[in-house]
Amino acid sequence: MTTARTNHQVRLAKRPETTATREHWNFTTEPVADPSDGGVLVQTLSLSLDPAMRGWLNDAKSYIPPVAIGEVMRAGGVGRVLASKNPAFAVGDTVYGTLGVQEYALLPQEAIQRAGLVKIDLGMGTVGQWLNVLGMPGMTGYFGLLDIGQPQPGQTVVVSAAAGAVGQTVGQLAKIKGCRAVGIAGGQAKCDWVVRELGFDACIDYKAGPGAVREGLKQHCPKGVDVYFDNVGGEILDHVLAKLARKARVIVCGAISQYNNANSMPGAGPRNYLSLLVNRARMEGMVVFDYADRFPQAIAELAGYLKDGRMQSKEDVVQGLDSFPETLNKLFAGGNFGKLVLQVAAA
Amino acid sequence: MTTARTNHQVRLAKRPETTATREHWNFTTEPVADPSDGGVLVQTLSLSLDPAMRGWLNDAKSYIPPVAIGEVMRAGGVGRVLASKNPAFAVGDTVYGTLGVQEYALLPQEAIQRAGLVKIDLGMGTVGQWLNVLGMPGMTGYFGLLDIGQPQPGQTVVVSAAAGAVGQTVGQLAKIKGCRAVGIAGGQAKCDWVVRELGFDACIDYKAGPGAVREGLKQHCPKGVDVYFDNVGGEILDHVLAKLARKARVIVCGAISQYNNANSMPGAGPRNYLSLLVNRARMEGMVVFDYADRFPQAIAELAGYLKDGRMQSKEDVVQGLDSFPETLNKLFAGGNFGKLVLQVAAA
Repeated sequence: MTTARTNHQVRLAKRPETTATREHWNFTTEPVADPSDGGVLVQTLSLSLDPAMRGWLNDAKSYIPPVAIGEVMRAGGVGRVLASKNPAFAVGDTVYGTLGVQEYALLPQEAIQRAGLVKIDLGMGTVGQWLNVLGMPGMTGYFGLLDIGQPQPGQTVVVSAAAGAVGQTVGQLAKIKGCRAVGIAGGQAKCDWVVRELGFDACIDYKAGPGAVREGLKQHCPKGVDVYFDNVGGEILDHVLAKLARKARVIVCGAISQYNNANSMPGAGPRNYLSLLVNRARMEGMVVFDYADRFPQAIAELAGYLKDGRMQSKEDVVQGLDSFPETLNKLFAGGNFGKLVLQVAAA
Repeated sequence: MTTARTNHQVRLAKRPETTATREHWNFTTEPVADPSDGGVLVQTLSLSLDPAMRGWLNDAKSYIPPVAIGEVMRAGGVGRVLASKNPAFAVGDTVYGTLGVQEYALLPQEAIQRAGLVKIDLGMGTVGQWLNVLGMPGMTGYFGLLDIGQPQPGQTVVVSAAAGAVGQTVGQLAKIKGCRAVGIAGGQAKCDWVVRELGFDACIDYKAGPGAVREGLKQHCPKGVDVYFDNVGGEILDHVLAKLARKARVIVCGAISQYNNANSMPGAGPRNYLSLLVNRARMEGMVVFDYADRFPQAIAELAGYLKDGRMQSKEDVVQGLDSFPETLNKLFAGGNFGKLVLQVAAA
């Protein structure tokens, strides 16, 4: 029944030195095969496009290995089980996992766990929400903010890339936990959107001029920054370090400003890191996969906030596998308002 | 009785841009007065010379205010009470406190607490030991290593400026707690001394060539660095960041490599800080004064190790107040083997 289908795929053709463009990708097709014993065949519905993807293109040590040349580009996504020879999955199940940038993911038994394939309940949230607040970005924001950041009511939480997937979870969750939420984002329109649509107390436009971040932090964080959730690194990190409150916590979650660089270690470090000493502050890295055993409880909590309206899940949905190269770059150009999702097939 | 004495003092004449030399100091004399009601007069026996002193010369925000132009240079020291109009101190008591670089400290009642003046027991340790393992450096090493570093038996602890006051406490305490202790110091003679006299498992000579620290860490920390106690910052910090073990802890205690700089914020940050992300590691600043209420228990523990021979307290004692400018710079030239002490008067 499935053998007549053709699988369109996006594979890594060569490693980009800076920005990945169409020449770095190969568009391939292959026939869709039936699953072997213990395996499943999943049709991709929507894929999550994330800043971390850029790091996977570099041939450098990171928390997961790079994507190999010729390999289907790694991507998490939501799909539907089309055929199953595994008792844990039934035809018609909606699943989340590392499906890759392709229309169909054929997962042999031994690949199912590696892909992190799990059934998800569309009664708890939409496909978009499962890639956003209920997905890896939401988990990253949840555990990074709460476990590493340990925000206390009344404290000031600052998050960069505030309109993105992680940022929107962090800021809204900070508000729910009784904190002041200050975003940093690019462009006045996006900042307005962060305040109006996501309910942040303020949002600083880092594109508004050389002193904009410093002045914005001064204005909106008069008592200093208690928690900084850093998605961007670079100069913005330095500005926030200079405004840390006593005993502040900096969550190192990413450094999108540095990702379009073939060397995973950036050229400049945070000049103001000695602010950690003066302020007895902490800077700590987090990788979301470490919290996998606690995802269910976090998802349940966040789904509750989505249902009762205390949290919004905002997605920026782009259609079609073929647009993948340009859509990915929207992230680095700051073009997305909300979690960037590539819709491959309608749910 | 005390009015016939003359107090020799070293005062800050002007702020150094880089290294403080003799031209940045004024040598002054003034008659020694009797204490007013509630005050004490203390004769300086020995002063602690510390890397942090260089930071106090800069007109920049730090955890304590800069020394003012014309002010007696701030210094902690051990002294003897010569005259007292305060019931908490008796003539002949040995005390520790911020006495300043001068032969006599006249402390009015309101200055006693600010100077942190406390009685010390020479039965627990010598004057030198009270400035070293039982003093601020020892407290810094103790709370930095144990509270922030949280070393577990079998883990690898690396400490820079290993032959210095803080470094010797950190490495020896790491050994006592069942860890592998690896020092970083300048020069083969000093490294040999660190291993032989202080009992470190290994010591890396950072002056041995461009790849020396990287190679040394590779050789002596095959499982990575679990705890790094950073006294120096700069390139050494970057090398250690690149070798962090999973869940490592970096204690930011100082950045002596950056201190001879009028701007308290150094020119370059740690390029490899994203190693914190990859390794889920933590970098945290500590200021010893925050632990003041726990000093007595730490001193008791460390004095026990000195008595039973499990810990050595090594001091490099230089004689005479007049040598202060050159003696201070010995720290930054790496000339000292052990805690640098300026002896002003015999005990």
